[in-house]
Amino acid sequence: MAPPGAVRHATGSNPGRAGGPTRAVTRTLSDDPLGGTVRRTVLPSGLRVLTEAIPAMRSVSFGVWVSVGSRDETGPQAGAAHFLEHLLFKGTHKRTALEISAEIEAVGGETNAFTTKEYTCYYARVLDEDLPLAIDVMCDAVADSLLEPADVETERGVILEEIAMHDDEPGDEVHDLFARAVYGDHPLGRLISGTEETVTPMTRRQIQSFYRRHYAPPRIVIAAAGNLDHAAVVKLVRQALAGTPLDVDPAAPAPPRAATPAVRLRPATTLVEPKETEQAHVILGCPGIDRTDERRFALGVLNNVLGGGMSSRLFQEIRERRGLAYSVYSYASQYADSGLFAVYAGCAPGKLDEVLDLTRAELSRVAADGLTETEVARGKGMSKGSFVLGLEDTGSRMSRLAKGELLYGDLMPVDELLARVDAVTVDDVNTLAAELLAQPTSLAVVGPFGEGDFSG
Amino acid sequence: MAPPGAVRHATGSNPGRAGGPTRAVTRTLSDDPLGGTVRRTVLPSGLRVLTEAIPAMRSVSFGVWVSVGSRDETGPQAGAAHFLEHLLFKGTHKRTALEISAEIEAVGGETNAFTTKEYTCYYARVLDEDLPLAIDVMCDAVADSLLEPADVETERGVILEEIAMHDDEPGDEVHDLFARAVYGDHPLGRLISGTEETVTPMTRRQIQSFYRRHYAPPRIVIAAAGNLDHAAVVKLVRQALAGTPLDVDPAAPAPPRAATPAVRLRPATTLVEPKETEQAHVILGCPGIDRTDERRFALGVLNNVLGGGMSSRLFQEIRERRGLAYSVYSYASQYADSGLFAVYAGCAPGKLDEVLDLTRAELSRVAADGLTETEVARGKGMSKGSFVLGLEDTGSRMSRLAKGELLYGDLMPVDELLARVDAVTVDDVNTLAAELLAQPTSLAVVGPFGEGDFSG
Repeated sequence: MAPPGAVRHATGSNPGRAGGPTRAVTRTLSDDPLGGTVRRTVLPSGLRVLTEAIPAMRSVSFGVWVSVGSRDETGPQAGAAHFLEHLLFKGTHKRTALEISAEIEAVGGETNAFTTKEYTCYYARVLDEDLPLAIDVMCDAVADSLLEPADVETERGVILEEIAMHDDEPGDEVHDLFARAVYGDHPLGRLISGTEETVTPMTRRQIQSFYRRHYAPPRIVIAAAGNLDHAAVVKLVRQALAGTPLDVDPAAPAPPRAATPAVRLRPATTLVEPKETEQAHVILGCPGIDRTDERRFALGVLNNVLGGGMSSRLFQEIRERRGLAYSVYSYASQYADSGLFAVYAGCAPGKLDEVLDLTRAELSRVAADGLTETEVARGKGMSKGSFVLGLEDTGSRMSRLAKGELLYGDLMPVDELLARVDAVTVDDVNTLAAELLAQPTSLAVVGPFGEGDFSG
Repeated sequence: MAPPGAVRHATGSNPGRAGGPTRAVTRTLSDDPLGGTVRRTVLPSGLRVLTEAIPAMRSVSFGVWVSVGSRDETGPQAGAAHFLEHLLFKGTHKRTALEISAEIEAVGGETNAFTTKEYTCYYARVLDEDLPLAIDVMCDAVADSLLEPADVETERGVILEEIAMHDDEPGDEVHDLFARAVYGDHPLGRLISGTEETVTPMTRRQIQSFYRRHYAPPRIVIAAAGNLDHAAVVKLVRQALAGTPLDVDPAAPAPPRAATPAVRLRPATTLVEPKETEQAHVILGCPGIDRTDERRFALGVLNNVLGGGMSSRLFQEIRERRGLAYSVYSYASQYADSGLFAVYAGCAPGKLDEVLDLTRAELSRVAADGLTETEVARGKGMSKGSFVLGLEDTGSRMSRLAKGELLYGDLMPVDELLARVDAVTVDDVNTLAAELLAQPTSLAVVGPFGEGDFSG
């Protein structure tokens, strides 16, 4: 499948575990015509460093990505990955919380972090000349956090406010409700932030143990993109991690990754969160495909045409022709072992039945009759164009390196990815549509309704 | 003030009005070391075209900017500028709504629009090879919209849903409430979207009249940035506008701009929107400075240090040390003839008094004692770094061209802007702080309170 000229590294292996190389090993991965040179080094500890050198850019984006998220938590730990993410900005042996942010902000840089269900990311974006500073600060913060007891208490308050803020945004809340409808008690069905009930009693000891267990070098990918030199980045990362808990003996076995419970998607479930909102916020959806499923390129095309843009069927039908919603779109979520395909709409509560009927009718129509050739061609154009347009800043380039490594064990070259989209046929899309969209759907609603309003 | 090498055009005049040139006039404005070559052409109609050629980028951003916003509306027209913005995507003599979006999306491009209090923008971002298509579609949509009666009715429903969605987001709503607290009945105090009361009865005739009155060539700036050729862009714009209502006789006088009522800022006003939210959403603020005030560079530095980042005083005091809020920040809004300086926080309703006391104490402390030299240096670094980092995509470059022309009648070269920030002294910042932050403050609160809870 790889076009001539693409250089790919072997997939699958995790070369940093015990028995891996004892010296850093560097390879050049790809040199794609749209981007810069990608290089990858595996340190003796197993930590991987990937960079993309793009000399025309003034900025560099630098990220530390850890292969742990909310799905790695047990029930009582719910919110631990996110709580820890907050605490890593609170201070190290070398720096206070103020110094961590002030050092980056003084040079006009920005830094932030986020936790997902499957990974956690800490990143900074700075001018190229400030990359050494950013590497030193970010590696220090992630590797050597003190988790001071007083900071745990303060940050607990911040996180409870973050949860409360989220509860004031029904358009966000409905996404969490839908995940719970589909995944139930499985970790993928829980809130990334945890809840007031799990965050309030969480102890420093629990968080510390989560930190030391999961933040092991073989589970960390460091990625950088912009005007940079790979060897210099690797050297600076090694210097910054020297003497920290991430500077481990390469002979030590990496801690085993806790097994995640097997995913069991619940059949057609309806959940309603009664709330006195102006709009009804609704998600209707079904099981999708996992992240490595070869059909993901066809699903991207299907999603674009069904509800991915202003020219999509749902946007045209529900907004342009009938004026029933301001926001209506479909989306696909993909995880390691499962996925979702769903439609969101926000509409007047009195129009919800009509919006649901129209959405269900459109899903059935596409399942039965498929998309036209013209639509599939447009959907492919959307996939390719938005992918290329999305690679024009150092932040998205950096994310691409890290996600490729962390989630696929591989970086797909840009031209191969475009070729994969090109290879999608009308038949591929319509076969997938027939399979996915004919499934029973689950429903999540936040709005002025009772819990039993949508049963039966 | 302009450094050697910068070429600037004369400010202030509006060269496209009657008596202006009858042939297109093109000048090179600047060739700054961080960006590309900027060129500006005034068409005989008075419409201005600005481009920045950046050959290293794959994308081009293209925008049509109109110097009209919600402050140009009379009371019963409230929401007309925004209603019109929605309708311009609904179809022309050449294209249906579906064709407008499908033509851009088929090549992976994106298109959108937004209305502010002082201007309206329609933009597209596409791969460079698709720029001719984007110019043709966007110019057609903006210049030649049909405003079909049926589309007015459908879009009214969409806008009412947009208003309802906004009402479900208390963190957004409080910003509108604060504008009303400060500006009262002045157009700057009203919602950009209008309200259900003004949008429901608005007629096609009113919107059509607003369109023809305000969308005149001398009030339109077209801007593009990316891998492009200026002369080609000008030619394509002229072709796309030929025969449309924007292809006007250059001898015809431009319609006069309606006078906006003089701004009268209301002294210390408190407005409360009672709502059963989880958090109290609060804004505390005072009059600021207008957009052309020379002190705006000092205000930027003051804002950075007071509440502009994670290292800022308010973030450190309210979030890092006390854990009272997840989101707390200050900001400055600037208009042609006035401005605001304000602090937002979202916190537990029971902690609101504490958050307000801490915020007021910090504002008083800075008014009385000023910032330190270290803080001002950091604030200047933030201004410069974030400005340069913010210029790395074609969208922000395109916006910079258009806003410079539309709001300042001039494009300040990057190096001059950086020099202006460099020239800010501790004394400049502290003199401004003493003046602004000692003023009586206004207050807006959305949350579980009564209307009289904060009086006295």
